[in-house]
Amino acid sequence: MSIQIRKLDSTQPDFRAKLDTLLAFEASTDDAIEAAVASILADVKARGDAAVLEYTNKFDRISADSMAQFDIGQAELDAALAALPQAQRAALQVAAERIRVFHERQKEELKGFSYTEPDGTVLGQRITPLDRVGIYVPGGKAAYPSSVLMNAIPAKVAGVAEIIMVVPTPDGVKNQMVLAAAAIAGVTRVITIGGAQAVGALAYGTATIGAVDKIVGPGNAYVAAAKRRVFGTVGIDMIAGPSEILVLCDGSTDPDWVAMDLFSQAEHDELAQAIMLCPDADYIARVEASIHKLLPTMPRQDVIRTSLQDRGALVKVRDMQEACEIANAIAAEHLEISAEDPQQWADLIRHAGAMFLGRFSSESLGDYCCGPNHVLPTSRTARFSSPLGVYDFQKRSSILYVSEAGAQTLGKVAAELAYGEGLQAHARSAELRIKAPS
Amino acid sequence: MSIQIRKLDSTQPDFRAKLDTLLAFEASTDDAIEAAVASILADVKARGDAAVLEYTNKFDRISADSMAQFDIGQAELDAALAALPQAQRAALQVAAERIRVFHERQKEELKGFSYTEPDGTVLGQRITPLDRVGIYVPGGKAAYPSSVLMNAIPAKVAGVAEIIMVVPTPDGVKNQMVLAAAAIAGVTRVITIGGAQAVGALAYGTATIGAVDKIVGPGNAYVAAAKRRVFGTVGIDMIAGPSEILVLCDGSTDPDWVAMDLFSQAEHDELAQAIMLCPDADYIARVEASIHKLLPTMPRQDVIRTSLQDRGALVKVRDMQEACEIANAIAAEHLEISAEDPQQWADLIRHAGAMFLGRFSSESLGDYCCGPNHVLPTSRTARFSSPLGVYDFQKRSSILYVSEAGAQTLGKVAAELAYGEGLQAHARSAELRIKAPS
Repeated sequence: MSIQIRKLDSTQPDFRAKLDTLLAFEASTDDAIEAAVASILADVKARGDAAVLEYTNKFDRISADSMAQFDIGQAELDAALAALPQAQRAALQVAAERIRVFHERQKEELKGFSYTEPDGTVLGQRITPLDRVGIYVPGGKAAYPSSVLMNAIPAKVAGVAEIIMVVPTPDGVKNQMVLAAAAIAGVTRVITIGGAQAVGALAYGTATIGAVDKIVGPGNAYVAAAKRRVFGTVGIDMIAGPSEILVLCDGSTDPDWVAMDLFSQAEHDELAQAIMLCPDADYIARVEASIHKLLPTMPRQDVIRTSLQDRGALVKVRDMQEACEIANAIAAEHLEISAEDPQQWADLIRHAGAMFLGRFSSESLGDYCCGPNHVLPTSRTARFSSPLGVYDFQKRSSILYVSEAGAQTLGKVAAELAYGEGLQAHARSAELRIKAPS
Repeated sequence: MSIQIRKLDSTQPDFRAKLDTLLAFEASTDDAIEAAVASILADVKARGDAAVLEYTNKFDRISADSMAQFDIGQAELDAALAALPQAQRAALQVAAERIRVFHERQKEELKGFSYTEPDGTVLGQRITPLDRVGIYVPGGKAAYPSSVLMNAIPAKVAGVAEIIMVVPTPDGVKNQMVLAAAAIAGVTRVITIGGAQAVGALAYGTATIGAVDKIVGPGNAYVAAAKRRVFGTVGIDMIAGPSEILVLCDGSTDPDWVAMDLFSQAEHDELAQAIMLCPDADYIARVEASIHKLLPTMPRQDVIRTSLQDRGALVKVRDMQEACEIANAIAAEHLEISAEDPQQWADLIRHAGAMFLGRFSSESLGDYCCGPNHVLPTSRTARFSSPLGVYDFQKRSSILYVSEAGAQTLGKVAAELAYGEGLQAHARSAELRIKAPS
């Protein structure tokens, strides 16, 4: 079965309209899911463990008698790690260590600050970790140990005291590589529950599960809806849309490499988006030929075909400069600049979740083991948001220590503005600290 | 009319339950508001300026013919500033400059980083400002020039190129102090529209208003509902709950000062929350006496009375140490530590939006002119979120520049993990970069 991939040309008058249509993605909201999730959350809030136990038994087709049966002890996590094939265990450990090193750099950057003014007033900002964090890990087919590392390690580096991981085990089946990743990442506790009931348990707390301060990690539509609903009670990470890659290529990279990079995004799911921008029409034809040649060799070729046909594109641009402008409009989750001297083009990019520079930087290296996080802003949200990082598990508090002398001068300014806003108690509160002239 | 303020004692067995009840606040969701907002947003998205014009004329009781009439030019902003009473203008300027200085420190802290590994692989993180930001400023009675400074200056310091301020002018009435603040803060453009229609215009863009990347600033229930709905299309700041102050006092501060600090929070609105924790029963009685004495002198005494009676409390604690533990559970927006050597207690605090240390640091000084932001996490969200800051107008991009040598070692790790996750295109994409042994 062949594949038809969309080809666009930036010189065509309707190019921007076509591109906008291609990029448009709106997560559908399903009323049935919303209603089910609202009901499950209310039930978990009201009945706690009893509700979590019932829903878990029902949805995951198991028959536990108590919440205690859902706890996976440290010994079982350690055993899962020990039982992995040696190469897999080593790969997980290398990846974890590199992720840790990168995220330590993020932590070093954010130390807080404090400065003292001439009158003795001290102003500053203090950085503190969150107390307790919940990490949602999907069960079943999309169980990714790399996601355990990418979500848990930044929390650990931030200094979060308790990291509670929830992972459903449909039909009681546990993913050993996920448990091994939890052991490596230093997760505090693993509970085999999932769905909206797990999100509710983490957000509201139950007799056996303390409420957390933030919930991160990917999940299905029920989990996403539940996270949206508990937002405010707890923090959440961004609700991710389909994954995307944008490859800017000057035509100097082996076309097989670029084709495979596009596949590596497309194989995630049918909604994933893989787009290439290139100024060289001949090269685009060669990448297309590589796609045709390589697709039949891929185990996930059906997913790749649907994704590329429905949401992919090979785009002929005027030059690399224009490619960068288009890339800024797309604000892709993953941006590969597969070109000679990629830095010159990287300097023109304002919006991207992660930038992969040079032809050796395939996205897949970043997905697993370079060190930067693979949880990245999707659906153009890189215009205003950042990769998951240590900073997502820290928060800032302002420090204001006004001296007696400072209160004299600042008090007059504050009172003037407070009266201007009609807030007299604000003004009086400042004025009470001002000494009467002696 | 006297006031009855709740008194609690931490030694009583039901203390924590009573405290939890007092703190509990859930924003009610109003189906009528939700439906109206959904309809307005859909209409603005579909019809653009025509819809914005119609809604603005209708809701603000004006009769503009075109969107151009809603633009306030730079000359009018400058004139508003020039026309302010001298003391008010000077106060705004001092406040703006101090806010700028504090936020410059935030910017300095976040520079991004980059490091090169022995094999030549470069990893890093780049910080860039948002392109375009919308700032919502309420019209009518809650029009606060200080909020204009607190929202616009961090965006300006971050390097945001375009700062679009929207402010409704019901019945065509403009608040001159708000316009003056916009002039001082360096807002790019001021448009006199408000409500859900303004949020929609900023989020989706119209023919006359370019879409922004993030919308910040307070608003009424319609504005809050609209911001929630456009979240994802654009970034938003946190939806604020009622304002709160928690005063920890060791009994050494003039009780009139503390009473007035509680008033300064309570005067915001009936839902505002003002709580004092103190180990000294006699002192609590003196603060209560001050409350009775001072309340009749306050222009906003009705609001203060309702707020203090419904949501306020004077709490007797065992000692200051316990006060700090309770403060961590409350995670207050504003925390005053009005005590001798306040730093010893500040060191025990993990969660607070802003901490005001020492008896001269009244919250009102911070609200207007100390420098740190007055937009702070409410309703216990200081457990996981931060004051508004320069960082809210910046985002990070990861940089991965893998060398040929790096691709050899990293490629094997990535491929091992990708095969483990069943993502063969990821594995192949890494493996293609690995040289065959020669």
